[in-house]
Amino acid sequence: MKKRPLILLSNDDGFRAPGIQFLIDVLRPLGDLVVVAPQSGRSGMSAALTVVTPLDLVIVSKEKGLSIYRSNGTPVDCVKLALNQLFEDRKPDVFFSGINHGSNVSVAIHYSGTLGAVIEASLNGVPAVGFSLDDHSINADFGPSCLYIKQIAKQVLEHGLPEGHCLNVNIPAIPVLKGVKICRQARGRWVEEFDKREHPNGGFYYWLTGNFRDDEPLSQDTDMYALNEGYVSIVPSKIDMTSYSLKETMKDWNFNIK
Amino acid sequence: MKKRPLILLSNDDGFRAPGIQFLIDVLRPLGDLVVVAPQSGRSGMSAALTVVTPLDLVIVSKEKGLSIYRSNGTPVDCVKLALNQLFEDRKPDVFFSGINHGSNVSVAIHYSGTLGAVIEASLNGVPAVGFSLDDHSINADFGPSCLYIKQIAKQVLEHGLPEGHCLNVNIPAIPVLKGVKICRQARGRWVEEFDKREHPNGGFYYWLTGNFRDDEPLSQDTDMYALNEGYVSIVPSKIDMTSYSLKETMKDWNFNIK
Repeated sequence: MKKRPLILLSNDDGFRAPGIQFLIDVLRPLGDLVVVAPQSGRSGMSAALTVVTPLDLVIVSKEKGLSIYRSNGTPVDCVKLALNQLFEDRKPDVFFSGINHGSNVSVAIHYSGTLGAVIEASLNGVPAVGFSLDDHSINADFGPSCLYIKQIAKQVLEHGLPEGHCLNVNIPAIPVLKGVKICRQARGRWVEEFDKREHPNGGFYYWLTGNFRDDEPLSQDTDMYALNEGYVSIVPSKIDMTSYSLKETMKDWNFNIK
Repeated sequence: MKKRPLILLSNDDGFRAPGIQFLIDVLRPLGDLVVVAPQSGRSGMSAALTVVTPLDLVIVSKEKGLSIYRSNGTPVDCVKLALNQLFEDRKPDVFFSGINHGSNVSVAIHYSGTLGAVIEASLNGVPAVGFSLDDHSINADFGPSCLYIKQIAKQVLEHGLPEGHCLNVNIPAIPVLKGVKICRQARGRWVEEFDKREHPNGGFYYWLTGNFRDDEPLSQDTDMYALNEGYVSIVPSKIDMTSYSLKETMKDWNFNIK
């Protein structure tokens, strides 16, 4: 008989976040779950890891088919700790991160802690998927995404993912989703608007704020476009960031040292 | 008359690190420099950004052709602050990060603060290059890299870089470098060895340690190979992580919600 899938979960909003609680509920029927998530919010942590302070790994609860741990580390630290300390006999069959409170389309893959964890799992040979809902609110309604998340999870368990690849899934925050689109990462960036304030003791300090700017709003094959149109977007992504085209071009550059 | 190039610099070892001091010395003849670097070491910060605390931006020194600022932010924050607050009239012509104390080959592009800053500058349309020396020591000898760094910088100023592209340069820590190789990112990963210790107040804590494992030591076109053979490695890298091959494959997956 085939073994029940072993599923590792994490996120960057902390183990108490409604997003991961919802993900746990959706995925429990599909396998045995081990959750290792930050003890509190670590948004914008990217693939950061902790090198100067020690990490903890504390069990929160354990019942049949579901163990939950928290750590003071980043999302990447959580994945590293989990794979190193909790899976001696058997590697997880799949890793899911999220559901993030807020979308992670376009270049967010470079900043997001949710996706930092996904990249880390993928690097360790575990098929990995990040889920994000386009609503930052703590009271976001994850309900409409339930069947889609389950179906995506089933497909990943069935097909697997090629080595060094992972999926970035974004879900619109609307009551009725239109379906799924396989997309490419939109070109865009955050346009910063630092809020500069005078410090009571002299000098200034700056709050980082900003808005995302879509640099190709008319392209219909991007994750940004799909999300705005009411579709669940999936961007198949890869760890190898080499630009093979620029690698060819640069053969004509001059690197002679006289 | 053509304007003197305007060059932005940062790193993840802090503005006092010998690596960035050396980079400043090497690049001063090429243009006017503005340095915005973390106030202390922020290694392993990836593309993390600071969302819950305010940032500062403090001028350290200013002379003709060289301004130095420090910030309590991450390397990415430093680049964001610099581009937003210091370049109102004219965007920098190029961005350089480093020289990092320690190599950043293979998948280090996902973890490194040095390269997080490079990705950030690239996202903002500034041609960006990260330099790393394969020696973690504070007393590392950056000397032999001088002519290579200058030549690479000149070539980037001459050719520019396509939008959404950046360069990851690694330098062997040897007295005589063999030349430059344009490479692809090696497949590999860090194999963690957490050092687990008993906490004096009960429970355990973990120190993250580990070693890099090259998953394709026989491939001769990787950055890891070039570095080990005594060459300066350059990996042309791109912001778009979409896997266009997996995007095709996944068209056959079943996303029907019954």
